[in-house]
Amino acid sequence: MIQFSINRSLFIQALNATKRAISSKNAIPVLSTIKIEVSQSDITLTGSNGQISIENIIPVSNENAGLLISSTGAILLEASFFINIISSLPDLTLDFKEIEHHQVVLTSGKSEITLKGKDVEQYPRLQEVSTDNPLILETKLLKSIISETAFAASTQESRPILTGVHLTLKDHKAFKAVATDSHRMSQRLLTLEKSATDFDVVIPSRSLREFTSVFTDDIETVEIFFSPSQILFRSDYISFYTRLLEGNYPDTDRLLMNQFETEAVFNTQALRHAMERAYLISNATQNGTVKLEITETSVTAHVNSPEVGKVNEELETVEKTGSDLTISFNPTYLIEALKALKNETVRIRFVSPVRPFTLTSDDEEGFIQLITPVRTN
Amino acid sequence: MIQFSINRSLFIQALNATKRAISSKNAIPVLSTIKIEVSQSDITLTGSNGQISIENIIPVSNENAGLLISSTGAILLEASFFINIISSLPDLTLDFKEIEHHQVVLTSGKSEITLKGKDVEQYPRLQEVSTDNPLILETKLLKSIISETAFAASTQESRPILTGVHLTLKDHKAFKAVATDSHRMSQRLLTLEKSATDFDVVIPSRSLREFTSVFTDDIETVEIFFSPSQILFRSDYISFYTRLLEGNYPDTDRLLMNQFETEAVFNTQALRHAMERAYLISNATQNGTVKLEITETSVTAHVNSPEVGKVNEELETVEKTGSDLTISFNPTYLIEALKALKNETVRIRFVSPVRPFTLTSDDEEGFIQLITPVRTN
Repeated sequence: MIQFSINRSLFIQALNATKRAISSKNAIPVLSTIKIEVSQSDITLTGSNGQISIENIIPVSNENAGLLISSTGAILLEASFFINIISSLPDLTLDFKEIEHHQVVLTSGKSEITLKGKDVEQYPRLQEVSTDNPLILETKLLKSIISETAFAASTQESRPILTGVHLTLKDHKAFKAVATDSHRMSQRLLTLEKSATDFDVVIPSRSLREFTSVFTDDIETVEIFFSPSQILFRSDYISFYTRLLEGNYPDTDRLLMNQFETEAVFNTQALRHAMERAYLISNATQNGTVKLEITETSVTAHVNSPEVGKVNEELETVEKTGSDLTISFNPTYLIEALKALKNETVRIRFVSPVRPFTLTSDDEEGFIQLITPVRTN
Repeated sequence: MIQFSINRSLFIQALNATKRAISSKNAIPVLSTIKIEVSQSDITLTGSNGQISIENIIPVSNENAGLLISSTGAILLEASFFINIISSLPDLTLDFKEIEHHQVVLTSGKSEITLKGKDVEQYPRLQEVSTDNPLILETKLLKSIISETAFAASTQESRPILTGVHLTLKDHKAFKAVATDSHRMSQRLLTLEKSATDFDVVIPSRSLREFTSVFTDDIETVEIFFSPSQILFRSDYISFYTRLLEGNYPDTDRLLMNQFETEAVFNTQALRHAMERAYLISNATQNGTVKLEITETSVTAHVNSPEVGKVNEELETVEKTGSDLTISFNPTYLIEALKALKNETVRIRFVSPVRPFTLTSDDEEGFIQLITPVRTN
């Protein structure tokens, strides 16, 4: 039966990272628990919601953990409840001792709390992913690819495949990440430095957002392993599994144009704030849009919501070429697209009032976004 | 028709303070608006939810306001919407101009937003409170009296009078504030330095909490005016009106004992954290209680929730006298009582397992709290 002592705050940190995979309202009750497995050399914490699974290892060799293992074993404990209890204890150190009938006694300072656990045999087996031949990426780069694309995925389950981000590797080096909800699209291209095995997968955007929270910035690189139905992201101590979406991802390349009629460069922040004001008014009526008017002398944004009011905004441009154009669109898409851009300026290229327009930034090569306009009579 | 320009961030601050009285889901639609009245010398902002009303004055003489009034008038604007718009504008300065049909044009930098307003005649008249003979209190003292008592008021409408704080002045100097939800009570006594007119009122505890947010710490004193159905708290620029609760407040003095059997002094924080742990376990079952066992040699806290687990906690005491005692109570009441205490230590006095116990602190004279135990088998 388990017995160990550990630095309480390090334990809380590992528990909270693992808990990101655990939902307290899971249809499978045992998935609201956290699995604690103690071996001679480490503690493994496991959490899963059926879609995502996280394994977090605390090795005896981690000096900050102050981990002393007296006896090994495994148990399931109600995750949120257990973490709340551990967080409330008074002392720096926690003693964890399993007693009969799957109970654990937690001692810290002068507090002694006894909790009921469950038999570890009740926990489902996570699908295995073979750990050969990983793709290795810098964590920072992978997180930036996710923040540039995942937001553009659909949140509606009507076309489940669009709730994911499409990741492909072709010719061993040509990496592409793309997401679209059919109103807008965001795509990141990248040439890998080292060759790797080609892949073509669609990962739920929700899983990728969780990945971003779990893999903190101190983790330099991440190994990625592929199986037909799952992906594993792994660092030294964390294994993050997510299921893949099944189905064919639509061909998004055909949406990209090469010829443009009108082109303008804006300050990213100034344009975003103008669109946020436009949104306040446009959002007051259903399907509110903003109208952008580009003429030889000025660029202006207009919203008219007859019941609440109107906005007229003059937008400064850094650069402007091509023909005059008036185009209407949902300002939310432009706001979110601008949030994903790290560059100070944004280049917007228009084909016509009824064709999608693109956003790129001169400093972020390989990153392109596309927004579909709204036809207004 | 109104026309003025003003420092935008100061205006936002005043709007947000006024908005505390405004509920966007009011049964009376016009109360979701803010009233803006512009005279030659100042702007008055008014918000009300029918229970609380706030008037906020921005005088031309306030140098930080940068207020230039060109034309006077009054208008109603949808409060949250208006504040969101003002907050989103780009420039330091805002120009506010009323045009025909109760519309206002807001200009800031290159943004121009037009909003529809409403005729000020639709706004209800706030009841007037005669402003003779105020009671003057330090804001800090009044806020501390509120934080010591308001939390103990009932949140249930079954006995509406208990949702208020009972404030009385007797013999021109003896001030008392008391709140109880019938399970616990909190009372603050105070001897006024200057004589004032006696009063006996019950103020909704929710109003007092809003008062605390509106009257910031830079306001040194507050004038209090009484009318039969309302109270007015007033500083130089803010008038805060609240309705009073009608009915007779129960006599709480009879609950206070003078004789005790057992007495112990604890470290306030340590006791609070122990009760928070006890609460985590006790709360997992309905009506969970904690049992305190005081013996000659130790004080221990116990919770036993058969389905989830148990707590055993040894509590250190600074001082302990009197007979042995075992008493059960809801730990939430003790946690909230300890939060209201500013002192490092707390003195708890017990009469018997079935009689209320009191909390006092040696440094906060006139402040006493009382908690009713729960009878177990």
